[in-house]
Amino acid sequence: MSRLGSILSQALAEIRPAKEEMEKTSKAANLLRERLSEAFSGTALRITFEGSYAKGTMLRGRSEVDIFIHYPVTVGWEVFSDHTIKISTSVISSLGGSYRLRFAEHPYVEGFLDGVTVNVVPCYAVDRGRWITAVDRTPYHTEYVRKNLRPEQVDEVLLLKSLLMASDLYGAEIRIAGFSGYMCELLIIRYGSLENLLSEASRWRVPVTLGPESERLREKDPYAPIILADPVDPERNTAAAISLDKLSHFILLSKAFLRRPSVNYFRRHPPVDFTVSCRGRSLLAVSFDSFAERSPDVLWGEIRRSGEGIARALNHYGFNVLRWDACLNELATVILYELSDVRLGELMLHGGPPASNERAMDFVEKALSSQEVVAGPWIKGGRLYCLKRRRYTSAAELLREKLSGGEVSVARGLADALKKARLLENLDEIAGELTSLKMESFLKEFLEACPNYLKAYRLSS
Amino acid sequence: MSRLGSILSQALAEIRPAKEEMEKTSKAANLLRERLSEAFSGTALRITFEGSYAKGTMLRGRSEVDIFIHYPVTVGWEVFSDHTIKISTSVISSLGGSYRLRFAEHPYVEGFLDGVTVNVVPCYAVDRGRWITAVDRTPYHTEYVRKNLRPEQVDEVLLLKSLLMASDLYGAEIRIAGFSGYMCELLIIRYGSLENLLSEASRWRVPVTLGPESERLREKDPYAPIILADPVDPERNTAAAISLDKLSHFILLSKAFLRRPSVNYFRRHPPVDFTVSCRGRSLLAVSFDSFAERSPDVLWGEIRRSGEGIARALNHYGFNVLRWDACLNELATVILYELSDVRLGELMLHGGPPASNERAMDFVEKALSSQEVVAGPWIKGGRLYCLKRRRYTSAAELLREKLSGGEVSVARGLADALKKARLLENLDEIAGELTSLKMESFLKEFLEACPNYLKAYRLSS
Repeated sequence: MSRLGSILSQALAEIRPAKEEMEKTSKAANLLRERLSEAFSGTALRITFEGSYAKGTMLRGRSEVDIFIHYPVTVGWEVFSDHTIKISTSVISSLGGSYRLRFAEHPYVEGFLDGVTVNVVPCYAVDRGRWITAVDRTPYHTEYVRKNLRPEQVDEVLLLKSLLMASDLYGAEIRIAGFSGYMCELLIIRYGSLENLLSEASRWRVPVTLGPESERLREKDPYAPIILADPVDPERNTAAAISLDKLSHFILLSKAFLRRPSVNYFRRHPPVDFTVSCRGRSLLAVSFDSFAERSPDVLWGEIRRSGEGIARALNHYGFNVLRWDACLNELATVILYELSDVRLGELMLHGGPPASNERAMDFVEKALSSQEVVAGPWIKGGRLYCLKRRRYTSAAELLREKLSGGEVSVARGLADALKKARLLENLDEIAGELTSLKMESFLKEFLEACPNYLKAYRLSS
Repeated sequence: MSRLGSILSQALAEIRPAKEEMEKTSKAANLLRERLSEAFSGTALRITFEGSYAKGTMLRGRSEVDIFIHYPVTVGWEVFSDHTIKISTSVISSLGGSYRLRFAEHPYVEGFLDGVTVNVVPCYAVDRGRWITAVDRTPYHTEYVRKNLRPEQVDEVLLLKSLLMASDLYGAEIRIAGFSGYMCELLIIRYGSLENLLSEASRWRVPVTLGPESERLREKDPYAPIILADPVDPERNTAAAISLDKLSHFILLSKAFLRRPSVNYFRRHPPVDFTVSCRGRSLLAVSFDSFAERSPDVLWGEIRRSGEGIARALNHYGFNVLRWDACLNELATVILYELSDVRLGELMLHGGPPASNERAMDFVEKALSSQEVVAGPWIKGGRLYCLKRRRYTSAAELLREKLSGGEVSVARGLADALKKARLLENLDEIAGELTSLKMESFLKEFLEACPNYLKAYRLSS
């Protein structure tokens, strides 16, 4: 066996579901489908397994079964939604399971049965291309993968998913903005094996357009980081969720893995203690209410928009945002920024138009009459400048004023919470706050700022 | 009389040479020319007055007479140079005057006679276009101006020169990089009057090409800030000495003057006391030997190149240079920088290539193995970054090391002096040093950073 082959075998042994896990999952899945078939016999056309369970591409410890209730298109929203929830929750309860309601594009039921997670999802049984809801494509995806993924490629999918998961690149949800399971399956179908995929991806140039069938989508969307036309629906970009940065990480991961292949890339490596790496660093923490009960995709969309809005405000006032990330648990939401400096000098350069511009004298008038201008206007490179007193020299002070005044562009759903946010720029205070909020490992990973696959690279040789 | 007319009359009364000054100058000039004619009768073809004295465009208090010794082209360098010096210095001495040798493109004698400065300059009497030395054009310039400048325009030239002089825009020497006297005369000939010139200049867009006869020069020199073909030599740009910034100042001066005309623009306004404007400012002074005995144009060329080289080094190491200027007297040379900060944080952002670049892994390897990297590499906008410990957090410390090590690109003529330069970044120390070096007003004007014409603008209404 080749060196790479033995590495992948070792990884597979760690990630393939154990026999007992598979048996337990199948038992719960089959039992539930049987009961649901009886309960929905009057309204639904059929009950099917979908997702990774149906395709055999489930990872160890991630036992999750998607069960779809297929309705005829003549069924209205009440049956589709309310009836599905009512019947499936009572079936799950009758089997001794628990459940909660979840919302994606439409509601579904997440059940817990004998330690197995089951999602009961309603869909319309439509012809290809006549989609009514977003999940109507799913049965076609399952069918496509079953037909096109060769049995020996199932392991390749497991390896790819596991590789991505270890570096936070797996999942199409907004929090991750990475690769969906279906995307992973299509990539393995397309490139045959993980090794071949990584070898291709290591040479990708952004933006990436995969195959001639994706060219039409590229014309319509020149800025999408990566496009792979969905074979089930050529109008849809399977890779639409993948952000530029997550794609870039995947490309770099491919390069790193091929240079120094090892099983380390399939494992998570804990962050180093932050006391070694925080000297001289400028962090700013925005800590506010927890909204863990909201739909994650909605909430993370709001966090992302608000985080970007705050970053723009910081940059606008001269605080150079190097990077930011957010953490959310049942106690709080924290957006954490790393800046060049949390404290700026009293003075700032203020640039104006070229002296030959028609607005030049407006700049001069303002500069000469302003109490804040301490020197100038002077000319450098033909352009006007003056030196002004800075209004805000502390990042926390700036945000305290701008957030409470509602002057920062944030998501409406978080606006009230952000008005009352705690703003911390002292490193010890931030460490104390995040420790008490059970976000210590988030802080450590933020300070480390090194993706898991590069830690794996460093450990390998 | 119009409001503008009365302003200009008032200014003229202040700048036109007084009758006694003219008489004293003429007396000294005529006496010297007479004696020189006798002394050079065997070797030179003729002795003429040139420059502003000959053209009647001399400003009050700037009595300076250029006397040219015209040699036939058959005369060799020894006669042209040594003979001129020997004879003219002995003539000046015999009249009770003093003198010193000066060097431009070739040597000449600067004499002081009864309080009048006289320059005795050798030139070759050549046909137009057959120039041997740079000053051979001068008699043609004098002739052209005498022929084309109408008598009533002489005052307009005086006003223009005075306006420029008050704001350090007058003079083609490297220290000033502004408008020569001949350039001023050509501008008045071209635009008829000061008012008309300012009204045109206020609408100039850089780069400026004056008249169709300058278009040919523009093709050859697309980046010259301003081009005016010399009517005496169409291959020569009369405005070649004018820097982008000085041209920009002239354009802005024109706008300011036309908005609020007043006699203030013809006067110099003292800088405010620097104690009011220095709080929070970041200055760095490089103080070294005086070279006041060197030819000013050579020396200022060296100072400019060295000043730019030091600015590049500062910028390269993260010290953002806002502006700089230099001062030179018999005690020392000082280059003074204003920075965003003289002290930087311990850490700096280090940017790398995009993750998909073929050099991405080189950046990763370096970052992972470097002792200076405290976080990363991370990806933002598809590009790699890491956070490094900064090598130099003090601008003075950086320059001390780089200058003494000869690692900064400076003019060779100043390299040794700069190796031993005093480097000051404390404001009180800088104020003390510059006061003891008799450069207090230079420091005040540097801190004020406001051109004289804008101070005039503020005073007018």
